[in-house]
Amino acid sequence: MDTYHHLLLAADFSEHSDRVTRRAQDLAQKYQAEISVLHVVENLPIADAAYGPVIPFDADLTDQLIEAATKRLADLADGMSIPENRRWIEVGSPKNEIVRIAKEKNVDLIVLGSHGRHGLALLLGSTAASVIHRAHCDVLAVRMRE
Amino acid sequence: MDTYHHLLLAADFSEHSDRVTRRAQDLAQKYQAEISVLHVVENLPIADAAYGPVIPFDADLTDQLIEAATKRLADLADGMSIPENRRWIEVGSPKNEIVRIAKEKNVDLIVLGSHGRHGLALLLGSTAASVIHRAHCDVLAVRMRE
Repeated sequence: MDTYHHLLLAADFSEHSDRVTRRAQDLAQKYQAEISVLHVVENLPIADAAYGPVIPFDADLTDQLIEAATKRLADLADGMSIPENRRWIEVGSPKNEIVRIAKEKNVDLIVLGSHGRHGLALLLGSTAASVIHRAHCDVLAVRMRE
Repeated sequence: MDTYHHLLLAADFSEHSDRVTRRAQDLAQKYQAEISVLHVVENLPIADAAYGPVIPFDADLTDQLIEAATKRLADLADGMSIPENRRWIEVGSPKNEIVRIAKEKNVDLIVLGSHGRHGLALLLGSTAASVIHRAHCDVLAVRMRE
């Protein structure tokens, strides 16, 4: 059986996401695999009542978000002994960036959190489901307890 | 870290699904977990040009499908040393049955195949993505190479 060589933890820093982190660590250990961590700073369209949704281009806000995310990622990665060259921050759509980075970095297992979806959220889909559709590799969705 | 105790392999007998089987076996071994196997005989509406889609109720056809699936499941489960009381055949919608059985049987990790989705298939969604939305437990989607 092919083993896993390179795991990617897609960290979203949401509540209860430590379960995802611990599972990624645990699997990396079991497979003696490298582990990298990615956080995507989401570029959300800001709703504008008069003109409809617009894509924001607020460089200051984005810079602040990146700065805050970089700190949180450093704390997380330090705790997991992940070296600096395997910590990545990207700006964009989480599903696209996770799939892109996984491919670029030859990841063979993506580990991410899966949030419960009901009602409208079920129709809108989720990052985990989109990543599964598009990833070239295996995906473990760790159920977040709400 | 919580370990996995009970893995459910959702077997679809499609081409290349041996990768999914081997991964489930490998994980069960690494976690010293029990492994069960489920195959869902899909109840597809049959397209009828004159009256639109109709739900078939062809008992003979369903019986034949169940019989064929039972044989394939027995071959698979024998090869994996899965005892008879942990082999399940259900008739219905794969996503619903996988989620239901996983809950009923206290499964903590579902292992299933994920097929590539492009174009229309991407819009229609997949069993793997639906299972992730609804499952109460973790889900590993093993990428099928096409």
